[in-house]
Amino acid sequence: MNFVTFRTAADATPHLGAIVGESVAILPGDMIGLCEKGAAGIAAAAEMAAEIPAAERQPLAAVELLPVVPRPGKIICMGLNYADHALEGGNDKPEYPSFFLRCPSSLTAHGAPLRRPHVSTRLDFEAELAVVIGRTSRHLVATDALEAVAGYSCFNDGTLRDYQRKSAQWTIGKNFDETGSFGPWLVPASTLPAGARGLKIESRLNGTVMQRSNTAHMLFPVVETLCLITEVMTLEPGDVIIMGTPAGVGYARTPPVWMKAGDTIEIEIEGIGILSNRIEDEVDGNVKIVAGADT
Amino acid sequence: MNFVTFRTAADATPHLGAIVGESVAILPGDMIGLCEKGAAGIAAAAEMAAEIPAAERQPLAAVELLPVVPRPGKIICMGLNYADHALEGGNDKPEYPSFFLRCPSSLTAHGAPLRRPHVSTRLDFEAELAVVIGRTSRHLVATDALEAVAGYSCFNDGTLRDYQRKSAQWTIGKNFDETGSFGPWLVPASTLPAGARGLKIESRLNGTVMQRSNTAHMLFPVVETLCLITEVMTLEPGDVIIMGTPAGVGYARTPPVWMKAGDTIEIEIEGIGILSNRIEDEVDGNVKIVAGADT
Repeated sequence: MNFVTFRTAADATPHLGAIVGESVAILPGDMIGLCEKGAAGIAAAAEMAAEIPAAERQPLAAVELLPVVPRPGKIICMGLNYADHALEGGNDKPEYPSFFLRCPSSLTAHGAPLRRPHVSTRLDFEAELAVVIGRTSRHLVATDALEAVAGYSCFNDGTLRDYQRKSAQWTIGKNFDETGSFGPWLVPASTLPAGARGLKIESRLNGTVMQRSNTAHMLFPVVETLCLITEVMTLEPGDVIIMGTPAGVGYARTPPVWMKAGDTIEIEIEGIGILSNRIEDEVDGNVKIVAGADT
Repeated sequence: MNFVTFRTAADATPHLGAIVGESVAILPGDMIGLCEKGAAGIAAAAEMAAEIPAAERQPLAAVELLPVVPRPGKIICMGLNYADHALEGGNDKPEYPSFFLRCPSSLTAHGAPLRRPHVSTRLDFEAELAVVIGRTSRHLVATDALEAVAGYSCFNDGTLRDYQRKSAQWTIGKNFDETGSFGPWLVPASTLPAGARGLKIESRLNGTVMQRSNTAHMLFPVVETLCLITEVMTLEPGDVIIMGTPAGVGYARTPPVWMKAGDTIEIEIEGIGILSNRIEDEVDGNVKIVAGADT
């Protein structure tokens, strides 16, 4: 059973839900709380959800999904983690991963707009595996690293390529509002191969396959990545690791392909599902938004 | 009047406090809530604190300060933002700032240990001005940008230089646990020059001045930085911007200077105060820390 964060038209509060067929069963608590429960607790939540009568569930099509974890403490991203994508950008296989961070305000959800900003047209897609952390962890080693993982999801690491290259640090091009799509749901780690290895991963722009690879081709797989990250920092429940993207992104094509308003971009990972977004332009980039007590 | 986040030995809960002489007056709410109130609301909080009787205040020396904002939604950092520091690293004056992010788990507080990890000895200091956001803001322009700022503090952007250079992305070397010191307090923007411009900034290692500059020498001052960032993303109350460091850091010296256990590093900014930390080694880098339901 898979899990979502969602809200309804009647209620702006985010809820934790479990997917039962084409419906959503509301569960108590939130996604981070679920992730902290461990495999047995997640299984118990699934059992609880299965007992909720159909009449009390919401149609999946009628709810608004939110990012799987709406406000992660940190979102750690990897660049150049598939050999073919590293090569298409003219990069050798790295000795150490390129890590950078996204901030929560850059997130969007399955079915929500993926936003092209006012200031750039160079909006590119990146199909990625998202790893969601369940346990506070430091100094993980290969034999225990996967115990830190609550589950997996899809991520579209939407990037403004011109901003990514404005300095040597990619961060700013990776943190535009509503450009990082995260969903549709959390798939518990227990229901996928160890480290989500060997899964087909694909992106499709308006139905045309743009990227097609397999998570087995990661240069730094999930276990090794968890060990490298926790050498440096403590992972906390709800933290997210985005595992890099394979070849086929828009900027490396001739001519380049940029996403524009009205396009539909889908990220599909085998055994997880399809993350779909329509591109919409920023509503009015010239209008300042300032909210606060003195406004 | 300046404001802190703190806790006491008797109570692990973080509290908002106001500094009254050598004591702390507890206020309702938290630091992000204070920042959201705007200049008039912050002034009202100061008035409220001034009326709290001395007998109800805590001695400042007896409380444990926490990072000014313990869990910011994002911490946006700038590299190479003083011409002299850019030059000491062999970098030209940039056309656009080098932005990267720190995560909340990398923070430490005034008076708390600044941690040298097990895996590296190349721990360096960086004296920086911290800008704390008070208003949800996008597309700020020069004439209104400072309305987004609640106040300022000191920051030590502690960096593991070898990890910073493991790839072209600096992020991983900037996100070790307990290496980013943030404090001691929030100084309301209304009590400092506009954009905190023209303030002496200094770092001292065991009492020896290592960096000495002035915030007037920033290549991208606060107003311009706020405009550039909000071209890309929405700033939210409690978000923090770290404004880069002047020349004199340890790695650029001959021979290099690295911080080690027992050292005291101080960051002082005129009109704000002194942020002081002792360096301590990671307690046992070989011992894995894994906490969670199944443990």
